[in-house]
Amino acid sequence: MDLAITDTLALTMADDRLGILEDATIAADDGEIAFVGPTSEFEGDADRTIDGTGRVTLPGLVNVHTHTDLTLLRGGAQDVPEIEWMNRTLGPLSAAMDHEDRVAGARLGVLEALQSGVTTVGEYTQDARRIVGTAHEPLGARVVAAETINAVDDAAADLGPDQPYPLDDKRGRAGLERNEDLFDAYADHDRISCLYGPQALDMVPPALLAEIRDRAADRDRGIHMHVAQGEREQRQIEARYGSDETTVSVLEDLDIVSDRLLAAHLHGATQEERRRLAEAGVRMAANPSSIAAIDGITPPTVEYREHGGVAGVGTDQAPGPGGHDFLRELRTTALLAKTKRTDPTAFPAWAALRVGTIEGARTLGIGDRVGSLEQGKRADLVVCDLEHPSVAPIVSQPLHTAVPNLVYGASGELVETVVVDGEVVLEDATLQTADEHEILETATERATAVFERASDNWQSADSVLVDRVANGWL
Amino acid sequence: MDLAITDTLALTMADDRLGILEDATIAADDGEIAFVGPTSEFEGDADRTIDGTGRVTLPGLVNVHTHTDLTLLRGGAQDVPEIEWMNRTLGPLSAAMDHEDRVAGARLGVLEALQSGVTTVGEYTQDARRIVGTAHEPLGARVVAAETINAVDDAAADLGPDQPYPLDDKRGRAGLERNEDLFDAYADHDRISCLYGPQALDMVPPALLAEIRDRAADRDRGIHMHVAQGEREQRQIEARYGSDETTVSVLEDLDIVSDRLLAAHLHGATQEERRRLAEAGVRMAANPSSIAAIDGITPPTVEYREHGGVAGVGTDQAPGPGGHDFLRELRTTALLAKTKRTDPTAFPAWAALRVGTIEGARTLGIGDRVGSLEQGKRADLVVCDLEHPSVAPIVSQPLHTAVPNLVYGASGELVETVVVDGEVVLEDATLQTADEHEILETATERATAVFERASDNWQSADSVLVDRVANGWL
Repeated sequence: MDLAITDTLALTMADDRLGILEDATIAADDGEIAFVGPTSEFEGDADRTIDGTGRVTLPGLVNVHTHTDLTLLRGGAQDVPEIEWMNRTLGPLSAAMDHEDRVAGARLGVLEALQSGVTTVGEYTQDARRIVGTAHEPLGARVVAAETINAVDDAAADLGPDQPYPLDDKRGRAGLERNEDLFDAYADHDRISCLYGPQALDMVPPALLAEIRDRAADRDRGIHMHVAQGEREQRQIEARYGSDETTVSVLEDLDIVSDRLLAAHLHGATQEERRRLAEAGVRMAANPSSIAAIDGITPPTVEYREHGGVAGVGTDQAPGPGGHDFLRELRTTALLAKTKRTDPTAFPAWAALRVGTIEGARTLGIGDRVGSLEQGKRADLVVCDLEHPSVAPIVSQPLHTAVPNLVYGASGELVETVVVDGEVVLEDATLQTADEHEILETATERATAVFERASDNWQSADSVLVDRVANGWL
Repeated sequence: MDLAITDTLALTMADDRLGILEDATIAADDGEIAFVGPTSEFEGDADRTIDGTGRVTLPGLVNVHTHTDLTLLRGGAQDVPEIEWMNRTLGPLSAAMDHEDRVAGARLGVLEALQSGVTTVGEYTQDARRIVGTAHEPLGARVVAAETINAVDDAAADLGPDQPYPLDDKRGRAGLERNEDLFDAYADHDRISCLYGPQALDMVPPALLAEIRDRAADRDRGIHMHVAQGEREQRQIEARYGSDETTVSVLEDLDIVSDRLLAAHLHGATQEERRRLAEAGVRMAANPSSIAAIDGITPPTVEYREHGGVAGVGTDQAPGPGGHDFLRELRTTALLAKTKRTDPTAFPAWAALRVGTIEGARTLGIGDRVGSLEQGKRADLVVCDLEHPSVAPIVSQPLHTAVPNLVYGASGELVETVVVDGEVVLEDATLQTADEHEILETATERATAVFERASDNWQSADSVLVDRVANGWL
């Protein structure tokens, strides 16, 4: 055996429940989980042993939807009206980023994700091949990557919300070709798999969407798409497709609604539409902190699961919600869900832990390979310290307080060891695959330059933040 | 000078804004802030210097409402219907706690608070003199303590929600005498001040409330009380005072509504009532994670501030929301407020930082002594690391990303140094006043015994959690 974690409390997720095991050993060999069971029954001899006493071992956490490159802009866009967020705060900043800035942001985002126990990142980004090749791949994360396919012409910036954005088919097709390059580049990678990434129905021509649908079917591939993001999108759909249409109705007509589809957000759909999507096997990516921060809305995660749909949680992007600490995001998901439903039983701790692991893996279409601690699955796991003031005391009778305390008390601070595909990526909370200090320093240098280059445009875009800065609030 | 923090980004809160200073020095002497200004203008010679490069210095955070003793029961009561929380999940556990268990819980809670940058705790507890004397006082926190005054007879446990609980005046008066002992014990303490603590209108006879009101006026003291906690309380008020009455209307008749009153919760009051309370100078303690977890409700913090009321944030108790990480609580406060109002501008980062410092101090009635970094105030401050993946990158042009990144990205993990009344209580994130490991170990030992003693009663109370344990979810 390469690796064994001994005498640990384990939450395996292997029994359609939490799979709670006390005094367990988890062993990995050749990147695969080779043993899960009582320490007393473990007879292997591991090259490396991690003492799991006072710790809990979980399947690696699965963050289903992120744009890690935007981590470089953390703090640049929040506390503004929804209508200002995209074009008047984030826009001037992201327009000032070059390729290397995006890489620096992605490396910072992946570092933050790994340090919070995430082993799989559902990445949605421009220039995905470069981003994955310089961030996720060398840092040691598992990634399910989609390339942005977006045909919106630059002229759209000058249009009102009810004028359909002009779409440039060539631009969209260039995105699709980059997406195919991404598939080709990582066709045989153990940790990297790919999805098609049409950005949203209002940003891609229907003929191109139909082609993506056909290629996905022919080649047995999935599609990661933003669906029903709200008011702005709905106005575009009505302007383009007619006032009786919605994003979901058009996607149904285009025959894109199927179990190949991973749909981010869905807060702009109706309950009835979400019921139909769930029944069709569409998987949902919910981004609670992000959508709360940008739109003041709680994603309909609880409802989607009541419809029988599979859902995972994502951290989306940092300028908005704040970042990629995934344990914190599970807490936020639970508390927002409770207040949305006025129901303290909504999204309980045990649901959060399953959604954050095995159900997240199913959401990304890799639930057969990761997401639970079971013999034969790839060895993605996280070990968290439980002897810490934010989760103590831990007792196991008459209930396991580790379950609620992980969700409501823990943060990335408790993550000690992260293993991806059998490799120890984080040890004693320290990244093993790159120099954390260098990642932070590069990100800060590049962010300083980006914000400086963007400064005039940011000022003249005149969001509410500009006035706040002038008055000593920011 | 005793202490200087040099070359730091400072958020002083001194100018009715955030008081943002770059390259600042903050110096303290004899427990008092002696200098706040540009490092280039600092000419003092400090016995101890802390390098503030790459760090932000804030006034110590102020947590206005907690029951730290219940930290021992963290994980014991959450994800249950509101009606089960008090009597069927928390009740059997808290009934099994003895004095020493409560002390162990309080020491754990105060440790967690200090490690998250809290310098002042608004403590509401039974046996406050013992709790403060064994937890807050020796660990070095500033505390504004109230003793529980509650006259509810044990027989109340068998009554339906619309039968008024029998009140035992003698029991209530014993609480008031303990409260007076608390005032006497800490009459001249630099870090400890006291309030009267009538628990709630449905739990104290009106004659005793009138006496507390008169003593508070005669002796110039404040009152910390739970007000309008929701449905259960309102049914009690109607049963006792008549169906036209509410908690607020009765408190107004009793002449307790004044600027002496610190009111926790208020979600059970009407908007019009909250407007009247705010106008009368009543200060509000909002507890977002707790009330979300227990009731599925977001406290009306934004509304109360719109009425012109002063409000602070508290973490209430751990079995429910999860704990006392106050930076995390500010993030939760902001995101819950945004979704409650469907408004991403609600409770912005700058408001969170003021509510967490100077406005929290005003809420507790000590805003003249602490809550901002100003010469002559007591030296309560916190230094946070900014070179960390959860808040980086930090830039200062065209806006200070430290402001949103502290609120949306930071947690207790970033807190390096905490100074209370000029004493360094936390250094390199390590408690200086007691053995952190001993606090954790004692809490875990005692919790294990408490949960074991409570086990039979917890099982027979038969909350929804009992079934969840049986089925492998908890």
